[in-house]
Amino acid sequence: MKLGTLKHPKKRDGELVVVSSDNKMAIRATPVASSLREAVENWAQAKPALETISLALNAGAAAGAFPVDENLFHSPLPRAFQWADGSAFLHHVKLVRMARKAPLPETLYTVPLMYQGGSDDFLTPREDVPQLDFDHGTDFEGEVAVIVDDVPMGISPERALEKVLLFMIVNDVSLRGLIPAELAQGFGFLQSKPSSAFGPFAVTADELKGAWREGRVHLPLDVKYNDRFFGNADAGHMHFHFGQLIAHAARTRHLKAGTIIGSGTVSNEDPARGSSCLAEKRMIETIETGRASTPFMKVGDTVRIEMLDKDGRSIFGAIHQRVAQAQPAG
Amino acid sequence: MKLGTLKHPKKRDGELVVVSSDNKMAIRATPVASSLREAVENWAQAKPALETISLALNAGAAAGAFPVDENLFHSPLPRAFQWADGSAFLHHVKLVRMARKAPLPETLYTVPLMYQGGSDDFLTPREDVPQLDFDHGTDFEGEVAVIVDDVPMGISPERALEKVLLFMIVNDVSLRGLIPAELAQGFGFLQSKPSSAFGPFAVTADELKGAWREGRVHLPLDVKYNDRFFGNADAGHMHFHFGQLIAHAARTRHLKAGTIIGSGTVSNEDPARGSSCLAEKRMIETIETGRASTPFMKVGDTVRIEMLDKDGRSIFGAIHQRVAQAQPAG
Repeated sequence: MKLGTLKHPKKRDGELVVVSSDNKMAIRATPVASSLREAVENWAQAKPALETISLALNAGAAAGAFPVDENLFHSPLPRAFQWADGSAFLHHVKLVRMARKAPLPETLYTVPLMYQGGSDDFLTPREDVPQLDFDHGTDFEGEVAVIVDDVPMGISPERALEKVLLFMIVNDVSLRGLIPAELAQGFGFLQSKPSSAFGPFAVTADELKGAWREGRVHLPLDVKYNDRFFGNADAGHMHFHFGQLIAHAARTRHLKAGTIIGSGTVSNEDPARGSSCLAEKRMIETIETGRASTPFMKVGDTVRIEMLDKDGRSIFGAIHQRVAQAQPAG
Repeated sequence: MKLGTLKHPKKRDGELVVVSSDNKMAIRATPVASSLREAVENWAQAKPALETISLALNAGAAAGAFPVDENLFHSPLPRAFQWADGSAFLHHVKLVRMARKAPLPETLYTVPLMYQGGSDDFLTPREDVPQLDFDHGTDFEGEVAVIVDDVPMGISPERALEKVLLFMIVNDVSLRGLIPAELAQGFGFLQSKPSSAFGPFAVTADELKGAWREGRVHLPLDVKYNDRFFGNADAGHMHFHFGQLIAHAARTRHLKAGTIIGSGTVSNEDPARGSSCLAEKRMIETIETGRASTPFMKVGDTVRIEMLDKDGRSIFGAIHQRVAQAQPAG
């Protein structure tokens, strides 16, 4: 089943729709729940009702269905009460820490890295990434994320996997120029991790057609930068699986339904798979040639992030964003 | 005007009530907005309607009013889309960094410290603080916080002050034993800052009776530990005022209505004012005697946090919490 959220000028959570498995048709599901947030908070009741709609839609028998225009979609959750992003691809951790001359954590292989992200105002999948200053070092990060049910404190990684309700892809926008000073303060990211954007559709595990195994999504994440190949790293190469990430987040507190847990930037050791962020490519260039030749994003640069299933069909729709000059409110 | 939220077994945001200025009577305000979250998201419409109810309630002329029992209240926002906590009392920063032998940030006096907190599951003002392990170093932190309206990216500190809608007090529960290892990973707090609790009532500026000046609340925060005096530090001693904290959070992104911004642990240099957290007291003991004699919270220890107005009346009601043994879900 695929779900999505239509933008709505007056509804902060948007409007819930069911999307057909081929991404072509959609139908409002607001009689079941006004928003995806509310559906997830009441999943036991909402899921079967949404599945009934999904079956009819996929059979071409849903009255009121309309063609999908991904430009009308918001992130599946336009806002969330929690967004905790891991960094489970250790190749990424190694490269970005090398880039900012930061030491690797001693617990790199044993304790997941995770930060608490801002989640009150996600970008839409096609929304411009605002840039106040080129020196902020605007970068994208292609990731996979899950939406979980209520999770009790202290859950085991194995049981945590049972709490995964939906899958998404993410562009975790990062301001590399602000990260060193911010992390030097010792309190983690805040200004350096502005609003993220998610792919248009959130999907249940069946839409991954067997690629969801051992707590990982075993499919490449396609990343295009200014319409050219940039990366197609296998998202299955997570050192820590999603159950471990969820359990890490829930070690000392409950997580409430609708919490989003991210994988961190998808990254493979094989150089042929490219990268899912500019920082990695810049570090590889520095290793190979002594200097980074790829600049961070300038106004007008675009990134497209998508994941295809084994039959070559887009699972989540596409994140496709351009960098635009922003003016501070003053 | 004072607002509060009654706990409700099926409503994650609870039920909105207006509370009389003397904290004695309350009345459901659900015809105006089902929850404080929804009222804040629609403040221009909700505020005058709530003020009408408040006027009638304070005049003893509100049909359906009932006596307040603070035990029935949740935190004013049982959950929020954002909780970003500053650390604007530099005396606190100096003491806790000394305690964990961490350097002071070079930008201590010029750039606010702020971390992104978890906000999906706040504790109620009277809820037990769960403790899995005494070695986690359970501590309280008494703070002041504000709820803001929609805030545009890049707002100035002066204009940011105009976005403050409501005031609260907080117990920002901290697990001191987990902080050093977590901060050593470089991604800020996650497990070491579990669920916070807020005082029962969120209030507009008029209830502070002139104590809200220059972006600060100029009143002492009373902290009792196991029913004895622990601190009454003046919350007006913030180095950065709330406008600066809000502008810091909004430097690279919009903040959405309902965002909570915290002051950090209230702390004064005058030793007679005591402390608002155990970590400070332990550091002072270490400086004076060579060792910390006050342990972190054990099961059964209690903290009470309250703020009185100039006439000696409780503004926000009381946070009163006990530490209780918790069992992991497994």
